[in-house]
Parts: sequence; structure tokens; C-alpha cells
Amino acid sequence: MKQSQLFAKTRKETPKDELSLNAILLIRAGFIDKLMAGVYTFLPLGLRVMKKIEGIIREEMEKVGGVEIFMPTLQPKFNWDQTGRWDTMDDLFKLDKSKDSELALGPTHEEVISPLLKRFISSHKDLPRYIFQFQNKFRNEKRAKSGILRGREFIMKDLYSFHANQKDLDEYYEKQKEVYARIFKRLELEEKTYLTYASGGSFSKYSHEFQTITPAGEDIIYICPKCKMAINKEIIEDLENKCPNCGNTNLLEEKAIEVGNIFKLGTKYSAPFQLNYQDEEGREKPVLMGCYGIGLSRLMGTIVEIFNDSKGIIWPKSATPFQVHLISLGQNEEAEKIYAELEEKGIEVLYDDRDISAGEKFYDSDLIGIPIRVIMSKRSLENGGIEYKLRSEDKSRIIPLNNINKEIETFYLA
Amino acid sequence: MKQSQLFAKTRKETPKDELSLNAILLIRAGFIDKLMAGVYTFLPLGLRVMKKIEGIIREEMEKVGGVEIFMPTLQPKFNWDQTGRWDTMDDLFKLDKSKDSELALGPTHEEVISPLLKRFISSHKDLPRYIFQFQNKFRNEKRAKSGILRGREFIMKDLYSFHANQKDLDEYYEKQKEVYARIFKRLELEEKTYLTYASGGSFSKYSHEFQTITPAGEDIIYICPKCKMAINKEIIEDLENKCPNCGNTNLLEEKAIEVGNIFKLGTKYSAPFQLNYQDEEGREKPVLMGCYGIGLSRLMGTIVEIFNDSKGIIWPKSATPFQVHLISLGQNEEAEKIYAELEEKGIEVLYDDRDISAGEKFYDSDLIGIPIRVIMSKRSLENGGIEYKLRSEDKSRIIPLNNINKEIETFYLA
Repeated sequence: MKQSQLFAKTRKETPKDELSLNAILLIRAGFIDKLMAGVYTFLPLGLRVMKKIEGIIREEMEKVGGVEIFMPTLQPKFNWDQTGRWDTMDDLFKLDKSKDSELALGPTHEEVISPLLKRFISSHKDLPRYIFQFQNKFRNEKRAKSGILRGREFIMKDLYSFHANQKDLDEYYEKQKEVYARIFKRLELEEKTYLTYASGGSFSKYSHEFQTITPAGEDIIYICPKCKMAINKEIIEDLENKCPNCGNTNLLEEKAIEVGNIFKLGTKYSAPFQLNYQDEEGREKPVLMGCYGIGLSRLMGTIVEIFNDSKGIIWPKSATPFQVHLISLGQNEEAEKIYAELEEKGIEVLYDDRDISAGEKFYDSDLIGIPIRVIMSKRSLENGGIEYKLRSEDKSRIIPLNNINKEIETFYLA
Repeated sequence: MKQSQLFAKTRKETPKDELSLNAILLIRAGFIDKLMAGVYTFLPLGLRVMKKIEGIIREEMEKVGGVEIFMPTLQPKFNWDQTGRWDTMDDLFKLDKSKDSELALGPTHEEVISPLLKRFISSHKDLPRYIFQFQNKFRNEKRAKSGILRGREFIMKDLYSFHANQKDLDEYYEKQKEVYARIFKRLELEEKTYLTYASGGSFSKYSHEFQTITPAGEDIIYICPKCKMAINKEIIEDLENKCPNCGNTNLLEEKAIEVGNIFKLGTKYSAPFQLNYQDEEGREKPVLMGCYGIGLSRLMGTIVEIFNDSKGIIWPKSATPFQVHLISLGQNEEAEKIYAELEEKGIEVLYDDRDISAGEKFYDSDLIGIPIRVIMSKRSLENGGIEYKLRSEDKSRIIPLNNINKEIETFYLA
């Protein structure tokens, strides 16, 4: 894409009303725009990153049998009364009831999917089922000060699993643990992300969160260096400050952000909706459920909190909005040719064709943070090629024009 | 995809609370599920159709310079006060104001995009701009009785264009007319879809709707058979019952559904938000705007209203959830092989591998409405091949196993 066509403009000044690093960088670099506290527009660059993250999650969910649907945002009070959550859930956005029946905006979808599944599950033959969606969620957060780490409106993947017995739920839950680990690995977050014991509600001793260590995190976790696992502060006292896995008491306190959460719901939602099935002997039994959430916008914010330097963002390969930032200094004809050739080969190129100074182009390029920068200038062409620089390194080198395609491919395959 | 894995179950009975053909067929065939009046879940088959329609529209928007973003659903009262629409727009969903600042759910996005563009447009060099999104929209419809033709929550593409002068707006508007015609052509709706004069508001004499003729339509239009254009009933008296194009008074009254709407907004929204630019002489001028909407869920419903028979839906090639419905009658090993081969070639296959009767499989297949049905049975294999049948035709024929790939490709290329 040509940068002159891109609807994005970087900013030198820090947005006045933002305190969080992720929002400051993403706004300055033209990825997002703030409409009000906790509510953001995704501009073309930001939307491209979201689509990359969405693609990775979709692929991994489909690998373990996930089937995609799309549930509504508007949810009727009737459903929330069945589970008793209409009055107990603090952050539920409710609509003006003088104008209509009583409705809420979905912060999660158990109250929709449980009755929905009644129409599709009647026998043990209909189980297991794994259903997921990507959806805007709504929570009336009082402290929406962390940029896209904690939005009042945010994009989430939620998968719900449905099982005939505890063993099947337990096995699928373990499988999802692995899937989540793979997603964080693909986003290069695995080193800082810990499988974390958290409170489990009434149906299992613990739930599990995936917590990524960053000073921007709003949670406190205690890491067990032996097990490479962690415990959320909310349950550390119940566990007598010991790792529940190995008994280790030398735990490290860290700030972290919850990037995912998996939960054995058991019959918590199937019971109120009478989501039952007939087993092989014809006995009516409640379906067991699990739920598995990941916040996409929160993941994007977490990546930015972790991968940055004083000049801007440094995107991991799998989440970058474009693979290559091609910058032409004057030599437009040659650059146009290279741009067309790379696009032809299916490489995603942001091509800075704007009529501004080299300094401004480099400034923007550092801020935006695409992993590879390729500069075409009179000087580089005289030196026999094109200047090739990684965003994560300081030095550039000249490579022959013919090698550029191979260099890029090698980088992204590594 | 294997039908045993597909989260969809057809229904023989008509849903009690549905009056509209599109909702009855889509619910019975397992494409959508009704949560409440005007609010539907898209099940895997329905979501696949939506993604096909979305893909076509995205492609066409990008061809005329459209750049994609994603704006929020939550919108602050402040913005709506600027345009005076907070109190005048009837169908605006508002949130319970005792709990929060006053917020509405976006029924359209002029109140978000106009102030947003202030940060990106300052000079004539920043114009023109064409920005679009796919977004859930919310309108508190009092008469949500037409299935997905008129939802209270529905998916829409909205593009906004920004221009320095009237000539540029006029030219782009004409281009979008052609783009819309191409979209309806790709969805095989062109024969029944008319460019229709409608009321224009204060900035242009007319706006244009795209109206598709169907008895399910809630609008009345008057077609000029000479011009192949139409006039919305709301302005036919102002036009003295004459075609504004050729003066013809022999107009045909038809029921129709508005599948698209394009509008010259002029300075209606740029003025209240002071969305201005500096022209070449440094004079401050208001930006001129246009907007261009298409309801995706409405389009899906319109297709179903038009393409069906007594047995079910008959999808057009470009919107079908799968390209081929492969049905095995007993011969699972051979069918598995063919299924794998077709998938390998990139053909989208729904493979009915369920352990139910041939009659039930055919019933479901007719209801779901995939254009090509391929049946593998002992009998067909003895006759030297595989049974090949179009959903739109009654007769089937036996074709050699080796030809199936070519037959399918030929059908979809035609």
C-alpha cells in the first residue's frame, strides 16, 4: 500500500489525555484514534494488526475443532435473569428501559450460547461441541485508563466447549492450554507469558489465566521459577504462599496483564437453561461447559507495551501491519518498480511515496515499527543496491537489488 | 467441512414467531438463530455467506480507493448534540444514563468520522479520502418483523467520501453508482435491482437508493421501463408522476427492498464539526462529504427472498456457503477420498458424512441450497461414476469420477 493513500498521520506530540504507553504509541503512530475513555477507532494500520492476530487465533481454534459463529451484542434481560447476573454484574451496560424492553450489551455470551445450544444438543451423539466467535464486547469499566489494555468496548475471541462428562471437559481444557501457549508463542509473547492459577468459582478449584509480565499490568502475580507457572495475588494467601505445583515458596512478585483466561464452567450455565442431553442409557444429564477467552485489542496493546524503544513500536513478525517498509528517497521510478515486484510476490509492503524529507520518513518509519526497512536512494543505487535495515537493529547494509526478495523471505521464515 | 462437525441442524417445522420467508428458510436450514425480535445469531453457514458478501463488497470498495477502518459502536451524546440528532433521531438506542455519561449505539457513523477526519485533513492535498468499515449497526426499530431484512442489530458497510469541491464529489458519486451496480451483479441481483431516485435532504435534489423488487419489500417504487430506473413513492408526487430522466408517465408500481443507499451529504456534517481544509490559495473551506451504505444482512435476506423454491434456498454462486454439497450414501471410503481431493484443490465442500437416510440427506441438501450436489452411491459407482445435480435443476446425470473437478470449475467460471 502506498503511504500517500494510507489514512494515517503520525504525531510528534504525546496525546494530552493518555497515560498509557500503548495508547500513546498507537495514537502517535496512527494505528488507533480515541473517541472517548476506553473507546477507540481502529485506523487502517491498527485494523491490519487486529486482522493478523485474529487470523492466528482463528487458525489455532479451528485446529482443535472450533467452529465459528457470530452472536449478537444486544441481549435480553430475560436471559440474564435465568443466571441471576442481571443485577449482580457490575459492569453490564444497560439500555434506557423507558424506550424499549430491557436490554444489555454483551460483556460475554454464556447467556446467549447456552439457550442456543438447547436447539442443537439433545443426545450424547451431539457432544462434544466447540463454538467460537470474534465479537465486540462491552463493559462499563470505571477505570478505563490503560489505553486498549482495558476498553469499555473491545474485541474478544470467546470459545465455549460442551461435553458429556468431566473427563472429556478436562481433556479439552488441557488441549486449550496448549493452544493458548501456541498463540502466545506465535505472537512472540511466550517468554513473558505465564500460565497462572486464579480463582475457580464453584465448579473447579482453579481457573487459569495467561498473564504477560509488563510494568503496565494491573494484576499482581507470583512466579514460581521452577515450574514456570504463576499464581494470581487473589489466591496466593489461600495457597499459603506456595506454588501449588511443586510447593516452592520462593516466588517472585511481578506486575502482569491478563491476556487470556480459561475456565471450567461445569453446569453453572447449563443448569439454569436446562441444557441437557440423553446419555447412552437414555438418562437426562446436564451438559458440562468450558469457556476460553482472549482479548484481541488487549493483546495488541500488550505487544506494544513490550516491543518498543524510544523511537516507537517494534512489531513481531506475525503481528506487523506490513512486512516491509519501502522508503524511496527521490528515486521514484526504481522504487515503484520494486514496490510492484514485491507486491506481485505476495509480500505486504508499505511504500512511502510521499513528498517529504528523508528525516521525516525515517521518523515515521521508526514510530510505525515494521520489522524490515528498505531504502532506495541515489547513493544506495550507486553503491550497487538497496539499503536494508531491521527495525530491531541500528546498522543497515547494502544488498543487491536482486537479493531483496530472498532476504525478506529468509527473515520471515526464520 | 464435514456436516457431522457443522454446528447446524435443519428443522422441518416453521418457527412459530417468524412471518418472513427469509427468516423462516434461514432458520429452518440452520443459517441463523433468533435471539429476539430483530436480533439474530449467525450460525456457521450464515457466517460463511456473510463473509462471501463482505469479501465482494471489500474488493469493490478497494477498487475505487476505499481504505478500511473500524469505528466504535459506543458514541457520546456530545457528538450527536453537534449535529442536533441526539433528540431528533427516533431509532437511536440510548444507554441507561443513570449509570454513565450519556451514550448511544451507532446507527450510522457521521458523528464519529467527521470529527475523526479533522485530525487527518487540513490541506487540499489531503483530499479526496474514501474511508469504509464493516460494522454492527443498531436501530431501535418498532417493526422488526421482516427477519434479517430489518434488524435492530445488523451488519452494514458504510463508506464516507471527502472532497475539496462539488465536481470531485459528483464524479466519485457516479463512480460509486457503478460500483454498487457491479456488487449487485456479482450477487446475481442485477435484474431485479433498480437505481431509484429518493429524497435528497438539503444538499442535493435527490439521493439514490438501490431497490430490489420482491413481494417482501416494505417500500413502494415506480419503475420506468424505458430508463430501467425507478422513483421512490416518497417523491413521486413531487415529480408529478413522471420519470425525472425521460419524462415517461407509464410507470410500474412494485414492492421493493432498499439494499443500498448513496447520498451527497455536502457540508451537512462537515459544517457542525468544522471539518475544513485550506485550498491552494490558503482559504479555509468546508470539506464536502458523500456516504454510501449497504446492509450485508439485508442483502443476505434479499437473496433468500428471491432465490428459493418450495424445497428451500438456491444460493447464487458468489454467495453460497460452500461450492459443492457432497453426499455419500454408504460408500464412505470413496467419498472420503473425493472429499479430500476436492478440498486439496481449494474447492469448498460440505460433505454429508452423517449416518442418516438418503431421504433426510436430500431434504437437508435442498433446504440448504448449495448450487452443486454430488452423490456417491453404490449404484452410481456401478454406473461408472458419480451423480451430479444442480440445485436449480431437477435432473441429475452420471459423470466419471475423474471429471468432477473439471465440472465444478466449469460451473463456477461460467
